[in-house]
Amino acid sequence: MPMHPVLIAGQWRAAKSSGTFQAENPATGEKLPGEFPISTWADCDAALDAAAGAACILRTLPPEQIANFLTRFAERIEARKSELVEIAHAETALPKSPRLADVELPRTTGQLRQAAAAALEGSWAMPTIDAKLNIRSTLAAIGPVLIFGPNNFPFAYNGVAGGDFAAAIAAGNPVIAKAHPCHPNTSRLLAEEAIAAVRETDLPPAAVQMIYNLAPEDGLRLVTDRRLGAVGFTGSRAAGLKLKAAADAVGKPFYAELSSLNPVVILPGALAERGAKIVEEFTGSCLMASGQFCTSPGLMILFAGGAAEQFIAGVKAKLENVTPGTLLSAGVARSLAASVKMLQAAGAELVTGGSPLLGNRFENTLLRVSGKKFLAAPEKLQTEAFGNASLFVLARDEAEVKAILDHLEGNLTGGFYSDTAGSDDAIYARLAPLLRTRVGRFLNDKMPTGVAVSAAMNHGGPFPATGHPGFTAVGIPASLRRFAALHCYDNVRPSRLPAALRDKNPNGKMWRLIDGNWSHEDISA
Amino acid sequence: MPMHPVLIAGQWRAAKSSGTFQAENPATGEKLPGEFPISTWADCDAALDAAAGAACILRTLPPEQIANFLTRFAERIEARKSELVEIAHAETALPKSPRLADVELPRTTGQLRQAAAAALEGSWAMPTIDAKLNIRSTLAAIGPVLIFGPNNFPFAYNGVAGGDFAAAIAAGNPVIAKAHPCHPNTSRLLAEEAIAAVRETDLPPAAVQMIYNLAPEDGLRLVTDRRLGAVGFTGSRAAGLKLKAAADAVGKPFYAELSSLNPVVILPGALAERGAKIVEEFTGSCLMASGQFCTSPGLMILFAGGAAEQFIAGVKAKLENVTPGTLLSAGVARSLAASVKMLQAAGAELVTGGSPLLGNRFENTLLRVSGKKFLAAPEKLQTEAFGNASLFVLARDEAEVKAILDHLEGNLTGGFYSDTAGSDDAIYARLAPLLRTRVGRFLNDKMPTGVAVSAAMNHGGPFPATGHPGFTAVGIPASLRRFAALHCYDNVRPSRLPAALRDKNPNGKMWRLIDGNWSHEDISA
Repeated sequence: MPMHPVLIAGQWRAAKSSGTFQAENPATGEKLPGEFPISTWADCDAALDAAAGAACILRTLPPEQIANFLTRFAERIEARKSELVEIAHAETALPKSPRLADVELPRTTGQLRQAAAAALEGSWAMPTIDAKLNIRSTLAAIGPVLIFGPNNFPFAYNGVAGGDFAAAIAAGNPVIAKAHPCHPNTSRLLAEEAIAAVRETDLPPAAVQMIYNLAPEDGLRLVTDRRLGAVGFTGSRAAGLKLKAAADAVGKPFYAELSSLNPVVILPGALAERGAKIVEEFTGSCLMASGQFCTSPGLMILFAGGAAEQFIAGVKAKLENVTPGTLLSAGVARSLAASVKMLQAAGAELVTGGSPLLGNRFENTLLRVSGKKFLAAPEKLQTEAFGNASLFVLARDEAEVKAILDHLEGNLTGGFYSDTAGSDDAIYARLAPLLRTRVGRFLNDKMPTGVAVSAAMNHGGPFPATGHPGFTAVGIPASLRRFAALHCYDNVRPSRLPAALRDKNPNGKMWRLIDGNWSHEDISA
Repeated sequence: MPMHPVLIAGQWRAAKSSGTFQAENPATGEKLPGEFPISTWADCDAALDAAAGAACILRTLPPEQIANFLTRFAERIEARKSELVEIAHAETALPKSPRLADVELPRTTGQLRQAAAAALEGSWAMPTIDAKLNIRSTLAAIGPVLIFGPNNFPFAYNGVAGGDFAAAIAAGNPVIAKAHPCHPNTSRLLAEEAIAAVRETDLPPAAVQMIYNLAPEDGLRLVTDRRLGAVGFTGSRAAGLKLKAAADAVGKPFYAELSSLNPVVILPGALAERGAKIVEEFTGSCLMASGQFCTSPGLMILFAGGAAEQFIAGVKAKLENVTPGTLLSAGVARSLAASVKMLQAAGAELVTGGSPLLGNRFENTLLRVSGKKFLAAPEKLQTEAFGNASLFVLARDEAEVKAILDHLEGNLTGGFYSDTAGSDDAIYARLAPLLRTRVGRFLNDKMPTGVAVSAAMNHGGPFPATGHPGFTAVGIPASLRRFAALHCYDNVRPSRLPAALRDKNPNGKMWRLIDGNWSHEDISA
């Protein structure tokens, strides 16, 4: 079987590899055709050199050209949609429709188009001008961005086509994508379209590069390399924290999305008012994509009592009535089983499920634990069980809920269900501030799955959900600002300023902060 | 001698200390009156507990109250100006006038007032509203901020009154200040005024706390504490990197200002056109405050030849004609001597100076090295010599300048001098991009000292100048955004939203990004 080449410096070239791997169909366990290389440092080094050169060229290109690339790439993905959906389905077992074809692929191309619009308008960089002192600053491309894509979104978070990719390119940076080894064929197809769009729009050939896999030690070396500007990582906490430590030691911005339980508190009034409806909402959310979303509701907090028992019984019945879906890989299935065991060892009891099934599936699983037991081992009981499993914590009273909230780690999301008549309002007012500071996106009366690509979205949160609570991975223009450095110009001659900082607004549409006011105007002499 | 108390939870209370220290008059070497405690973990723990409580209260206060505090604090500093200037002069040997009384103190109160205005207006938090999806987000207080102030600005960067302090408070956070041990009396006076202003404006008592010193291991523990929101550090690279590593490991935002050489390239045309004028500008800048500014020009890059030799002779004459100033401390004097020795050991030659003088002074020092030698040991020859010493690199040709720029570490500032007739324009165009990406603030025809408190300022830069190239320590509103987390509200009921995110613009002056447009408007139903 011939080995697939890697994409370096605009060429599909034979990898300098230390080994190979194959993708696997998670539904059947069969190896999928195609052998992929595990790149050695030689490939990384070549990609870094090429990316450094591309970064210099990208800085000089007009925004239109970058926008054109993003748009053409989106169009090319759409043109190859059916093949992409087939291959992604084979590699991930995610349903072809609606998930891959009707939700994730349109979301991916939508992100690319939003990024194109942001690059074209230029407001994302927040050009700021002090006209009197002639000091002017703007965010600017940070340099080559290395992107590690996760297993759970083969299109929308793919290192070579997803949200981080779109943001990094729109901010003017070349990307080195490290494909996820669970879906190399999907990544290959996307990279083929990316590099074709690069050629069509005359970007520097190394604007988009991709390798399939590498040894952990080369990953650690890569994230610290002087030629690299920043890193985007979505994946497991264990792998992410090792890479983050290496990057941090040399001050390399490392944007990580690591783990999240997405705690939801159901207040007593809501349970009494619409318990059955919330059963539907919860089970719909937690089983979506077999629970393999970063925002899956993994931790529910309830007030112990009859209403909670009824709610649990409703959820149990529902979970037992839905056929468990295939998980993304044998690794995910193993890890889910291990996490459920850890939760049990820490004091949680199984309500339903808890066992592996044939074909990389796992029983829909619900665990429960008392507030008291949770507080005895809060760290272990916050083990993420990535997949179709959730833990309910049953608190004795408000004080116990407060203590539980106080022991929560940082999460991407968190929220409250409360009744519509106002009987929960007082307790909400006391509890909400405790959860608010521990999450990025805070919800009312809504399950956390479903991350809209909106300018107001925060798909981020306090550590260990991410590495810094001020940044979001989803939402344009904010996601672009992760891949930028602040460039200030002091007394620089007008002709030498970047277009965004000259007196004339370069396109009449760019928002600039001029002497304290956001404006589309030119600066008058 | 009685030991000075520390400021914890609104009280001046006896420290739980492991030892004591005294300040020293750097000009005379005499110990100054007053014994100060080295706090143990017990003090840190008490301060953290109190700060966590204060953070919860501060989040609920109207912006007016925070603005009032900052303004009252500024007024109180002004009322105690002469005493502050006397004590700061005794502890730092910085000139009373103009430096302390006419430059640094007004800058400090100016920063506090700008921060008050920013808190009041609220635009710093960039409220962003997607009206259609009802997703709304804003930056919000991150939690207690620990601030390590440096030795070189007893007022303007003081942990209990300086730029980081003003930014952290204006963003709604309590501050735990760790005073610099070189000026504890100055810090004590400032803290007295701060806590008096806290009482006058009814902030929570632990909004401002201060300890004087602590053991290194307690510093490492402090920056990782769960109760802490973020850290601001200005100081030495060695100490800063240790604290940063500890904070990074637990995902605690750590904003550091560590070191900078502030490279300046003098192009041939500029040297020919106005060499004598640039001699004046350079010596004025590098001797300002005896070179003890973060933006002091420590590395000049010149094209070797007759004009460069004439320039060096001019600088030498000037440096030898100015009486060296007293350095901030015996430690600074020792460290400067050691750095100059390290530069010599790495291949630099002394042009003038190089020896310690009585009274914590050091000869005005100029070193030189060829481009070739610099490139043989670029890391060692970028040793920061904090104080009145600079290194000139004499490059053979443009290619060598390119290689030098390519080996530069990250710096706060960097710039070019070029001629006014245009003869340097071509070479500028080729070289400028190489320096641009390695600095935060990029200058033309101007020395780097003098950091204006402007919205367009960037007092930041790539590692190791700071820990992240996207943030600035000076310049409002941007400096506030360091001490904030991104808070998103998804489907949250209107009455439960923070004022900044409700349909009605809370003060009619706050800039909000509503559906892609920056606006002062309300959202119409």
